[in-house]
Amino acid sequence: MARYPASVTDLIRLFTMLPGVGEKTAERLTMHLVHAPVREAESLARGILHMKDVIRLCRICHGLSDRDICSICENPARDKSLICVVAGISDMAAMENSGAFRGRYHILQGLLSPVDGVGPDDIRIRELAARVGAGGVREIILATGATLEGDATAVYIHDRLGRYPVRISRIAAGVPIGGDLKYVDQLTLRKAMEDRHELT
Amino acid sequence: MARYPASVTDLIRLFTMLPGVGEKTAERLTMHLVHAPVREAESLARGILHMKDVIRLCRICHGLSDRDICSICENPARDKSLICVVAGISDMAAMENSGAFRGRYHILQGLLSPVDGVGPDDIRIRELAARVGAGGVREIILATGATLEGDATAVYIHDRLGRYPVRISRIAAGVPIGGDLKYVDQLTLRKAMEDRHELT
Repeated sequence: MARYPASVTDLIRLFTMLPGVGEKTAERLTMHLVHAPVREAESLARGILHMKDVIRLCRICHGLSDRDICSICENPARDKSLICVVAGISDMAAMENSGAFRGRYHILQGLLSPVDGVGPDDIRIRELAARVGAGGVREIILATGATLEGDATAVYIHDRLGRYPVRISRIAAGVPIGGDLKYVDQLTLRKAMEDRHELT
Repeated sequence: MARYPASVTDLIRLFTMLPGVGEKTAERLTMHLVHAPVREAESLARGILHMKDVIRLCRICHGLSDRDICSICENPARDKSLICVVAGISDMAAMENSGAFRGRYHILQGLLSPVDGVGPDDIRIRELAARVGAGGVREIILATGATLEGDATAVYIHDRLGRYPVRISRIAAGVPIGGDLKYVDQLTLRKAMEDRHELT
């Protein structure tokens, strides 16, 4: 890569540190910025710096926010008596995209994983208990994924919150909508069979 | 996209302005930077700003450079009596990658295109003539692509430099090495046939 000046070679190398960006892509992105108006390149650079400067975790739900309290937690239209518990920010984003939930969130920092030394106090379960303890919560919806760790985390939270007068539910596992049965794995099929419900 | 704070949404939008970066990719890049150490994100931002700050065109060959004269033009090991003429920076990069050329370059700003109103004075042919006129040049190698515009530009330069005591050559067109004849287009085959040379 001695064929470009150092400033260009350096930027190509920096771009390859981003996920899914190989050398060819990094070169294409860099050459675009080489030819782009200064204003466009500066907007991108300043956008990165600004984001890192203001981004933080919401004091209540631990979701991403530009301020102390995120826009969902401070939105009076969102039912504060419903808390949906997810394993991370992208799970919350997926749930928001679905439009299926109009309450508030509690974003865990991952899932319980005793093998990796990740215990309840490492993933903000204590903070969840505190929110429930403060009152005003009617239902906790455990939306941790249908994996071993997701299940274990859900079971643990259920036990830990047992002493509070709060309903605790778990989102359903089963065959994905539009999913062709022959492409669905065995565990999912067994779970779907187990959780079958009567048609009325 | 109201599911992310403004600083994140803005950065996603800025990333989608890069070539080949769709919304999903922009989101992935942004989320990587959200979680990345501040130092890594700042390196990228400062790399962009630094590149735009120092990058310029070499005063001699008009290739990219961090200084007034590029590293090829100031390299005494590169034969200054040979000038390879290319249509742009990426063509020069390709030629450098091939390792086929040890002289210096003249980077045109594209190719002649009368239809689009692009004439000789718009693409630095005058500067090429000046370099040749200054003396010390033995051969001009026209490496503009084997397209209509590439050919027209080569012919024009050949005519314009006719009065100088300089050899003017054109890189060969033909079947690509490793190219299976049945996948090579008709024009290329005709050209390869026309330019056939005797085996000795």
